[in-house]
Amino acid sequence: MAKTSLKHFSVNPWLVTETEYDKDFSLVSESIFSLGNEYMGVRGFLDEGTAYPALNGTYFNGIYEYSKKTEGGYKGISKRTHYMVNAVNFTDLRLSVNGVPVDMSLTPYTDYNRTLNLATGKLTRTLIYKVDGVNLALNFTRFLDMQKYKRAYQRVTFTADNDCTITLTCYLRFDGKHFGKNSRWVMVEKGKDFIMAKTRSTAQYLACAVQSGFDTEQQIEYSAEKKVSLKTFTVNLKKGVESVFTRLVSVSSGTKTAKEDAYNELKLQAEEGYDKASLRNDLYWQDFWNKSDIEIVGDDDNQQGIRFCIFQLQQTYHGAKEGDNIGAKGLTGEAYSGNAFWDTESYCLPYYLFNNLDGAKSLLEFRYKTLEAAKQRAKDLDLQGACYPIATISGEEACTLWQHASLQMQPSTAVAYGIYHYYNVSGDSDYLYTHGGEMLIEICRYLLSRGQWSKRGDFGYYCVMGPDEFQMMVNHNTYTNFMAKKTFLFTLEVLDNMPKDKLDLLIKKTGLQPKEKSDWLTAAKKMRILYDEKTMLYEQHEGFFDLPHIDVDSISDKEFPLYSHWSYDRIYRNDMIKQPDVLMFQLLYSGDFTRECKKANYEYYEPLCIHESSLSPSVHSIIATEIGKYDEALKFFKFATRLDLDDYNRNTKEGLHTTSISAAWLNIVYGFAGLRSDKEISISPMLPKSWKSYSFKITVKGCVVKISVTKDNVIIENLSKIPLNLLVYGKNLTVSDKIILKNQ
Amino acid sequence: MAKTSLKHFSVNPWLVTETEYDKDFSLVSESIFSLGNEYMGVRGFLDEGTAYPALNGTYFNGIYEYSKKTEGGYKGISKRTHYMVNAVNFTDLRLSVNGVPVDMSLTPYTDYNRTLNLATGKLTRTLIYKVDGVNLALNFTRFLDMQKYKRAYQRVTFTADNDCTITLTCYLRFDGKHFGKNSRWVMVEKGKDFIMAKTRSTAQYLACAVQSGFDTEQQIEYSAEKKVSLKTFTVNLKKGVESVFTRLVSVSSGTKTAKEDAYNELKLQAEEGYDKASLRNDLYWQDFWNKSDIEIVGDDDNQQGIRFCIFQLQQTYHGAKEGDNIGAKGLTGEAYSGNAFWDTESYCLPYYLFNNLDGAKSLLEFRYKTLEAAKQRAKDLDLQGACYPIATISGEEACTLWQHASLQMQPSTAVAYGIYHYYNVSGDSDYLYTHGGEMLIEICRYLLSRGQWSKRGDFGYYCVMGPDEFQMMVNHNTYTNFMAKKTFLFTLEVLDNMPKDKLDLLIKKTGLQPKEKSDWLTAAKKMRILYDEKTMLYEQHEGFFDLPHIDVDSISDKEFPLYSHWSYDRIYRNDMIKQPDVLMFQLLYSGDFTRECKKANYEYYEPLCIHESSLSPSVHSIIATEIGKYDEALKFFKFATRLDLDDYNRNTKEGLHTTSISAAWLNIVYGFAGLRSDKEISISPMLPKSWKSYSFKITVKGCVVKISVTKDNVIIENLSKIPLNLLVYGKNLTVSDKIILKNQ
Repeated sequence: MAKTSLKHFSVNPWLVTETEYDKDFSLVSESIFSLGNEYMGVRGFLDEGTAYPALNGTYFNGIYEYSKKTEGGYKGISKRTHYMVNAVNFTDLRLSVNGVPVDMSLTPYTDYNRTLNLATGKLTRTLIYKVDGVNLALNFTRFLDMQKYKRAYQRVTFTADNDCTITLTCYLRFDGKHFGKNSRWVMVEKGKDFIMAKTRSTAQYLACAVQSGFDTEQQIEYSAEKKVSLKTFTVNLKKGVESVFTRLVSVSSGTKTAKEDAYNELKLQAEEGYDKASLRNDLYWQDFWNKSDIEIVGDDDNQQGIRFCIFQLQQTYHGAKEGDNIGAKGLTGEAYSGNAFWDTESYCLPYYLFNNLDGAKSLLEFRYKTLEAAKQRAKDLDLQGACYPIATISGEEACTLWQHASLQMQPSTAVAYGIYHYYNVSGDSDYLYTHGGEMLIEICRYLLSRGQWSKRGDFGYYCVMGPDEFQMMVNHNTYTNFMAKKTFLFTLEVLDNMPKDKLDLLIKKTGLQPKEKSDWLTAAKKMRILYDEKTMLYEQHEGFFDLPHIDVDSISDKEFPLYSHWSYDRIYRNDMIKQPDVLMFQLLYSGDFTRECKKANYEYYEPLCIHESSLSPSVHSIIATEIGKYDEALKFFKFATRLDLDDYNRNTKEGLHTTSISAAWLNIVYGFAGLRSDKEISISPMLPKSWKSYSFKITVKGCVVKISVTKDNVIIENLSKIPLNLLVYGKNLTVSDKIILKNQ
Repeated sequence: MAKTSLKHFSVNPWLVTETEYDKDFSLVSESIFSLGNEYMGVRGFLDEGTAYPALNGTYFNGIYEYSKKTEGGYKGISKRTHYMVNAVNFTDLRLSVNGVPVDMSLTPYTDYNRTLNLATGKLTRTLIYKVDGVNLALNFTRFLDMQKYKRAYQRVTFTADNDCTITLTCYLRFDGKHFGKNSRWVMVEKGKDFIMAKTRSTAQYLACAVQSGFDTEQQIEYSAEKKVSLKTFTVNLKKGVESVFTRLVSVSSGTKTAKEDAYNELKLQAEEGYDKASLRNDLYWQDFWNKSDIEIVGDDDNQQGIRFCIFQLQQTYHGAKEGDNIGAKGLTGEAYSGNAFWDTESYCLPYYLFNNLDGAKSLLEFRYKTLEAAKQRAKDLDLQGACYPIATISGEEACTLWQHASLQMQPSTAVAYGIYHYYNVSGDSDYLYTHGGEMLIEICRYLLSRGQWSKRGDFGYYCVMGPDEFQMMVNHNTYTNFMAKKTFLFTLEVLDNMPKDKLDLLIKKTGLQPKEKSDWLTAAKKMRILYDEKTMLYEQHEGFFDLPHIDVDSISDKEFPLYSHWSYDRIYRNDMIKQPDVLMFQLLYSGDFTRECKKANYEYYEPLCIHESSLSPSVHSIIATEIGKYDEALKFFKFATRLDLDDYNRNTKEGLHTTSISAAWLNIVYGFAGLRSDKEISISPMLPKSWKSYSFKITVKGCVVKISVTKDNVIIENLSKIPLNLLVYGKNLTVSDKIILKNQ
């Protein structure tokens, strides 16, 4: 992989700054400067608009449209995709000075600076426009409320070196294009400082109420256009006197009552005011970093990179609202259409398990809330129980490609794994015995009905695609078989060990029959697992070892991404793999496999992998670290934290690789620090040779623990002062205050 | 398969008659009463129009539209389908009597009869309308010219039992709906007795010139509507005096010059006149039946059925025009969009090889004419040589489903087989050494580049779908591997044995390198063929024997067709097969396998087959006959000849199963009569026990041979009087006149 970085942003531990506006890079910058608070996301587009390339995207978690239904087609194939739709743009402004419109593409300017402050969650942009003989200094600031998630804030300060008259038009607009196509929003109401519309196909209402104005004398005029509400201010600036424009925005979604709700929210927002809210949010972020920071000494690039990742992850999701999930691009762009994938449970969940247990639980609750949709999906596939979708916003299957939607079972086993993982870290048996148990039962029903018995009497899955999407339709994919086996066994263990009263409730809810349990046990026992004792190799699927070989290094750079350059079916007929498959289940259930076994499989599969998924290198890095291949581990870490900052994949303009961002966190915490959480919580830290030291904080069993790794030492500090048991380098330690160990 | 017949048409050796018009069956009748002459096809819709359900379809071989292109998608996947488009309707009439419009849905009538005469190719319909106190007897006759293929004929006779005035409006219309959607034809010219339009996306012109009129005094008025040209006749009928309306139609297609061509054709048509043309066509059919009839004594249903099949096959294709092929529904409906499949070479070609050798060659020429398109298709798939499309009208791949278009290789191996088969029957080495050889070389290039070497050093095909479409994406499908091996070996044999001058020309044309030949030889030698000496079984593909078993008899009738009732992916994960795969290559290369081997494979695979292709039962019947399972052979023959006449599949309304019709012919001639043509031409006739006798005529090496099979005897008559060598029951016979053998 000869990926190269595009260095555009200056390196700083807490700030992401650009001091030049590059119109050819503007879409990338917009993605990088995205703000989000889980409820909503705003790309970093210019407040005052521009003729330069821009994607003025504002997105709301769970607000989506259906695509047009395809005609005809076969049973069990979704007929339409769902897409998170570009929604109300509430930051849009137009400015003119003495009647001359201002636009960075036309108006001369100096002193440009745009900075995202990772410590405070604020995006500021300053510049001085030269217009009509006036030097007008502008400072734009935006932030989204991380706690009162319906609220957004915009402030612009104006300072002119000469008296002048400015007009500032503030837009509330539902006419933003989506993927280049005209808005499909249906207007419901346009009023003064208010706009409400609904999605065409899903009838979701979105209301936006605003309070805005200058701190100086102003003339105000209201008007309206199609899908747009406007408010124009005329203000006379005095030479050298700062004038401040503030816009408070409250948004609400749902049914028609969104209007009332938005107004109520705005009332409270106005009562608190901009300054208090700004301070409250600063404190929020301060508190957050106190619990979740990763500090790297001796590697400024990765220091900035990992903080950017953590920041974006927190922005995208932190359990603010029930029923939210994490789209592949978060709320930062339109690629992947805002859909969530199995990435949530497989890659993102661990971050939340160790930083925000409530947020982790809430991710599982997304799956519980969509259990009925998963049951319907199983029915559509002629199966029983619950089949979780490969791509979804609402819980419905949104992927129209049957080869993925019908053959990939990892969303369902990932949900089961997520429940297991959450319980293992949290010990929350209440959840396990209720919602968790119910989901497990329905997933087992699906897994039993989708599996089949071979003529030689063992059980497994035919016509499946594992996590490695380059082996499309295979039998006995070991990932699938293994994960199903573990799901059966864990579910049975839960059912066998839970209190009778809880079990009775579950049985009543699900109609579970004794026969089902014995069927699951038989299926688990008879599951075909392709393992060779001698070589310690798991065969990725039946026949994989016999597949024609291709030297992945022989494929030229120009041929990537293969999906664009190779004929579709050509991708699938050799031993090349897209992303870890065997290595993936060996990481998820790390404790089930010896280091030697992992080494054998890593050495077999790593050379076959081309990492066409941005989730792939980190998994390899984590396992490489465990088996002592530190150079390779670093090689695979290389792109992890700065994938988007340096636009390695040249597609950051489409939005951030949000779920890959979680892989960067995993790469450091599970990789270099060797955290494992599938059995007992354990760490085995090492220090990458180019770093002087690093430290990170995680929350384990309610204790905030800081782990610092230097060349010589591993220092474990329990900041919560409640004694904590932790397995370190395989040994049980009780950490009450601070323990210093030799770095092994 | 609990298929049941719908008996609607009266049984008669040469006539297909309905004496009742059933509006709920009208679309089936329309399909059955379709006329065609290869160039064009006209469904049997009512000339005078009706409010009853009707599909007024008129289709032209090779006149098609592109569907809208799909957005996005992957490389090597066709972005649009092609469909044979409903074209100019030149038989449409509207009739009123004394100003009262006539329509079978409104006007009382008696004495209804509609008859397709298989002996003459004429469709007639008679009835007496009771309108405005008048009994008006009508006789509609249509036929299409089997020789002068651009010409069509319509005649209506009128006899009233009272003086009355009729107005008859004759339409030329391009506004017929296609699959329920509005016509996309672009009008070019509407004139008196003339209309010309072109297809929107493919810019094919179609011109239609007409001469029409009554044999009595008439008033004529011309008018026009959108995409329609009209001519209205007003005629006073005298009580008891027959009045005859005749319409001569000449159609031409291609570029703008179609207009001139249509007029020229009409001039010639008018010179000959209706009556002479009618007689000439009668003679054409008489001559045809003299050479190609099958006579069955003791089974009136199958007698009518097989004649209907042969008639339709001849109508659809007889080599009238270069570049024609045979759509799955012929020219009788819109299902399958008029596309031709591998059925042409695999199922239809044998009929032409033994009835119309020029027609057979012309089918191969379709593939030669589309060689460049096949080479482009191979390129699109990142392959070399020529990949023939799974579905096509123009030679381009028209199938947008990658799983079929990219994974099914049988179109290309079928073309190679067709060349082999044609040469074997015809001995036409001129063709083999030129066009045939060139196609073989390009197909071999494709086959080599699509194949791969396994890690154990043998060759074969990965990620393919064989003829059995219920095993979607498998490795080492034996049909595919075996057919590729035979293609390599035959091509090498041709190249090694052809005259040097011819070879030099071929090398010059194709740039053939010696290395390519040695590569093909190695690939053929190293081809993995999954054969077990002990059981004599060929495994359908790697891992097939281990697949989960499903008892096909356990699937209820209501679940068929599975494509409509089962979730798409569910179809593919067990040992159920849709149509013969191993048995198919054992039939194509019958001489390569012993009877015992065929028996073993038949007994293994037949119980797994659900015959979801209408092509499937006949192949089973043929092999069942060979291995002495006569009862099963008859069971599978049951639906062959009357599949459409009795609407067994309940979808004849969409058009006839034209290529299955050829399977009915195969079933008798290759099945009961045991014809084999893959090595020496041989027969081994038997008599189905419910028949008294049967006879058929085929043309072998220029000799028309009649073979009659009775309970006791097989009588071989050489009607051409040139001595003919024929292998009968494994013995070489020279037939000069007539030979009578014991029926074995």
